[in-house]
Amino acid sequence: MSEAINQAKLAMGLTSPNPPVGAVIVSDQNKIIGTGHTQAYGKNHAEIEAIKSSSGNIQNSTLYTTLEPCNIEINTPACTKEIIKNKIKHVIIGSTDPNPKINGRGIKILEDKGITTEIFKYNETLESTLESYKYFVKYHKPFITVKYAMSLDGKIASNTGDSKWISSEKSREYVHHIRSNSDAILTGVNTIIYDDPQLNVRLSNYQKKHQPKKIILDTNGRVPSDSKSLDSNCILITSKLDNKLKDKLHSKGVTIEYIPTGKNKKIDLRYLPEILIKYNLINIFVEAGSTLPGELLYNNLVNKIILFISPKIIGESKFVPFGSKGINKIINSYKPKKIINSSIEDDILIKAWL
Amino acid sequence: MSEAINQAKLAMGLTSPNPPVGAVIVSDQNKIIGTGHTQAYGKNHAEIEAIKSSSGNIQNSTLYTTLEPCNIEINTPACTKEIIKNKIKHVIIGSTDPNPKINGRGIKILEDKGITTEIFKYNETLESTLESYKYFVKYHKPFITVKYAMSLDGKIASNTGDSKWISSEKSREYVHHIRSNSDAILTGVNTIIYDDPQLNVRLSNYQKKHQPKKIILDTNGRVPSDSKSLDSNCILITSKLDNKLKDKLHSKGVTIEYIPTGKNKKIDLRYLPEILIKYNLINIFVEAGSTLPGELLYNNLVNKIILFISPKIIGESKFVPFGSKGINKIINSYKPKKIINSSIEDDILIKAWL
Repeated sequence: MSEAINQAKLAMGLTSPNPPVGAVIVSDQNKIIGTGHTQAYGKNHAEIEAIKSSSGNIQNSTLYTTLEPCNIEINTPACTKEIIKNKIKHVIIGSTDPNPKINGRGIKILEDKGITTEIFKYNETLESTLESYKYFVKYHKPFITVKYAMSLDGKIASNTGDSKWISSEKSREYVHHIRSNSDAILTGVNTIIYDDPQLNVRLSNYQKKHQPKKIILDTNGRVPSDSKSLDSNCILITSKLDNKLKDKLHSKGVTIEYIPTGKNKKIDLRYLPEILIKYNLINIFVEAGSTLPGELLYNNLVNKIILFISPKIIGESKFVPFGSKGINKIINSYKPKKIINSSIEDDILIKAWL
Repeated sequence: MSEAINQAKLAMGLTSPNPPVGAVIVSDQNKIIGTGHTQAYGKNHAEIEAIKSSSGNIQNSTLYTTLEPCNIEINTPACTKEIIKNKIKHVIIGSTDPNPKINGRGIKILEDKGITTEIFKYNETLESTLESYKYFVKYHKPFITVKYAMSLDGKIASNTGDSKWISSEKSREYVHHIRSNSDAILTGVNTIIYDDPQLNVRLSNYQKKHQPKKIILDTNGRVPSDSKSLDSNCILITSKLDNKLKDKLHSKGVTIEYIPTGKNKKIDLRYLPEILIKYNLINIFVEAGSTLPGELLYNNLVNKIILFISPKIIGESKFVPFGSKGINKIINSYKPKKIINSSIEDDILIKAWL
C-alpha cells in the first residue's frame, strides 16, 4: 500500500475534482507488475493506469488502491468493470469513496463477482491524499490549508517586513512539496507587492512537473504589472480593475475574475469557493500575510493549518499570523479538532485541523 | 538517583545562592536508610541532612547526591568531612560543582580517603535543578526564565485583554510547580494593573510550603495599592514613588527598591541583577505581558523560555510575546542554542535555552 500512496501523491494537484488515487498490482508470485495513478480530470483512473502498465500475468493478482474503485462510466470505463475483466482476484482498498454514487457500491460489485476485498488499516498519509476530495464530496467546497512560518514568539516577519528566512531549509523544501500536491496557491495582493514571490514549485529533480495555479486576491487592482507570479497560470480575483492594468494582465495571459466587495470593502470571500470550484481547484494552499488568513478563518474557509515554528525570537513586530478579525473572549477562540506536533530539522511542525 | 533528584526539587527555591541538592543513603543491604535536601542558606546541606536522617548501619553505605559534596566549612561542616567520619564507602555524584573553591576538590578528598566516587550519567531533570546555581557561579548573575502561554497564532490574550485561559489546566498546574521551584516571580506593573494576579503557588496537597518572592517592576509608581500581590513577600522596584503610595506599601510590608530610569525612561534593567542577588534571588521566573520580556531579552537577561502553545486561534490582537525591542533582519534574530519540543495535555510545551 505504501507504493500505492506514493502513486497517489504523484496524482495530487492534477486530478481535481477527481480524487488523486494511486494503485499497484501484485502478481500471485508476489511481484509488483503494475503501478499507476489518476490522470487529469476526464482521463484514466489509477486502477486503469495500473492495469494498462502491468507486465506479466495479471490473472489472480492483488490490486492495491488508495480509494474504492468506481462503478461509474462517464469519461472513462468503470474501474470495477476492468478489474473483473482482467480477473484480478483480490482488491485491497485504502478508503471507501464517500461519493454517494459509489460509497460501497464499487466494493459490492467486486464481491458479487467473487473478487475478495479488504479495507486497509487507517493510514495518516493515505488519508491526507484524500482529505480535500472527501471534503469536497461532502460539502461541495474547496479544502483550504493555511501555511505559516513563524518565530518562537509568534512573528511571521520583522517589523521592517523581513521574513527571509524564518523557517529552515528543510521546512521550505517541504513547503514546495505541499505546493506540488496542491491545485492552487492562494495569496493576497500585499504579499505580491511586498515579497513578489514566484509561487511555483522549485525542487531539485522535480519529476512531477505540475505547477499549481496561482490565485491572487486583489480587491482594488493594486497588483504591480511586473510581478513575477503574473502569467497564464495565474488567476487574479478583484472587485475593481482599471482598463490599463486589465490590458496588461490579459497580455500576460492572466485570467481575471470579479467578486463584489463585502461589508469590510474587501472582496466578499463568501463568493470565493464557487470561483475556485469553477476552475476545478479543490485543494487550496494559502501562503499569505497577516490579514487574508484571518478573513478566511472568519468566513469558515480554513480547514487545516500547517505551522512551522522556528527557534528564533524576533521581538516587536506587527506581522503576526491571523492578524485580522480577532475574537474578544478566549472562550470564543477557534479550536482545532485535531492537532499533530512534530519536528522538521530545527523547526517545530504543527498540523491542525479545524 | 531519581529519589535524590526528588529531594533536590524539594530544596529548589529555598537555598539560593546555595545550590538545591538532594541526597539519599543506601545501606550495604541495598535499602534506603536516609534522605535529605539542602536547607535554607546558612543551614545544613543535603548530605548532612541525609546522614542525620539515617536509620540503621551507615557504615559501608552508598551516598547518592545530585551535586559534588563540598569541602568548605563556612556556616556548616564540610560535607566531605561528615562522609568520611560516617565511613560511607561509595559516593555517586550527579554533577561536579563548578564553584572554583570546590570543582573536583570534594571528589579528591573522598578518593584520598579510600572512598570510591562515580559521576552519574547525564540527566536532564537533574541538570534542571542545578542550572540556575551553575549559571550564577559562572557569571554571578541570576538565571532568568520567561514563561508565555500563547495561542497557535502567537497571541497571549485577545484584543480586549482576555487571557483566561489560553493554556490547559495541566499546563497551569505545571506553572505552579515551576513557581514553587523558583526563588522569585518577576512581573511588570501592567500585569498587576490589568490581571491583578496573586503570583503565589496554589497546588492541592502542596507540601513544600515555599512561596517565591514577588518582584514587581514599576517605573513610575503606578501599582494600585489594593493589588492582591502586595504583601511582605513582595519587592517593588521603582524609579519614582510618591510618599502616599510609599506609606501604603510600607504598611503592607512591601520592600521598596529604587533603580534609575534608562534611555527609554523605564527602569534601567542593567541594575536589576545586582538587586536580585542582594536578596539571594538567583532562580527567577518571569510571568509578564508583551513588553517586559522583550526588554529583558534586549538586555541579555533571558536565559530560558518556557512556552505553552495551546490549540486555539485568537486572530487580531496586540498582545503578543516579546512585544518590544524588535530586530530588523531575521538574520539578527535571537537564536536559542537548545530547544525541547514536548506536549502537556492538549498543549505544546517548548523549552528553549538562550
